[in-house]
Amino acid sequence: MSEMILVYTTFPDWESAERIVKELLEKKLIACANLREHKAFYWWKGKIEEDNEIGAILKTKVELWDELKKELKEKHPYTVPAIIRIDVDAVNKEYLKWLLEVTK
Amino acid sequence: MSEMILVYTTFPDWESAERIVKELLEKKLIACANLREHKAFYWWKGKIEEDNEIGAILKTKVELWDELKKELKEKHPYTVPAIIRIDVDAVNKEYLKWLLEVTK
Amino acid sequence: MSEMILVYTTFPDWESAERIVKELLEKKLIACANLREHKAFYWWKGKIEEDNEIGAILKTKVELWDELKKELKEKHPYTVPAIIRIDVDAVNKEYLKWLLEVTK
Repeated sequence: MSEMILVYTTFPDWESAERIVKELLEKKLIACANLREHKAFYWWKGKIEEDNEIGAILKTKVELWDELKKELKEKHPYTVPAIIRIDVDAVNKEYLKWLLEVTK
Repeated sequence: MSEMILVYTTFPDWESAERIVKELLEKKLIACANLREHKAFYWWKGKIEEDNEIGAILKTKVELWDELKKELKEKHPYTVPAIIRIDVDAVNKEYLKWLLEVTK
Repeated sequence: MSEMILVYTTFPDWESAERIVKELLEKKLIACANLREHKAFYWWKGKIEEDNEIGAILKTKVELWDELKKELKEKHPYTVPAIIRIDVDAVNKEYLKWLLEVTK
């Protein structure tokens, strides 16, 4: 297990996705975000819904998880956002060094 | 570790991907699916093949893993589908609550 | 925990992404690669940068991690590439069998 984590979240559109990840970068809560579109299918209020969304993979260190989760919940346009943490089992040392340098 | 898992699988086209994830939703074996295109490169029968595929991230709870895997295998157009489980290390409690409510 | 791992890395363009994953396949260091475009936002030399990239999910077995990491570092166009390992918690046995057959 490394000190690095991935956090997966989804946004309703590019505007909110880009704005919020830039705010997280400015606060140094994440080192990097990778954003791409997907089609989401899910249960909502008893119906199966279908939407285009932006999925984001956020890269940060485990010590920032609680603060990142709190900040994301406050900023997120969804009432029930997905804030999903996957711990990184191993990572090349140069990348981890950079990630620890650019986060708070 | 949370009760939530991600399952990653790939489909040959949008038609099969959408049809099968909707069936999994109707059976309440998953709460949500995120689908997007990718280009796949892989070994098959002694050659390196290249194909456009649909990659799907399925979100569900760990108790449904065996049943989901069985159902996916039966429905899947590939003879050797990828059904890959990644356990979620942490997730915001609102999302987990919703996920547990909408799955069987 | 299975013997299978996912390795996530990102490339600056399709040319380098396709060339390098094909070389990894030819050396049987990976069984499969899934590639798609994303937009990356990240800290670099004191500024927040924005770039289009190709994200790659590589599928292989844990025994090849060290060799794959070394090979990727040597070939990678970035000075600080991301080479991120996520261990697979479970996978269908047919897929694992295939993965073990086509890797070295």
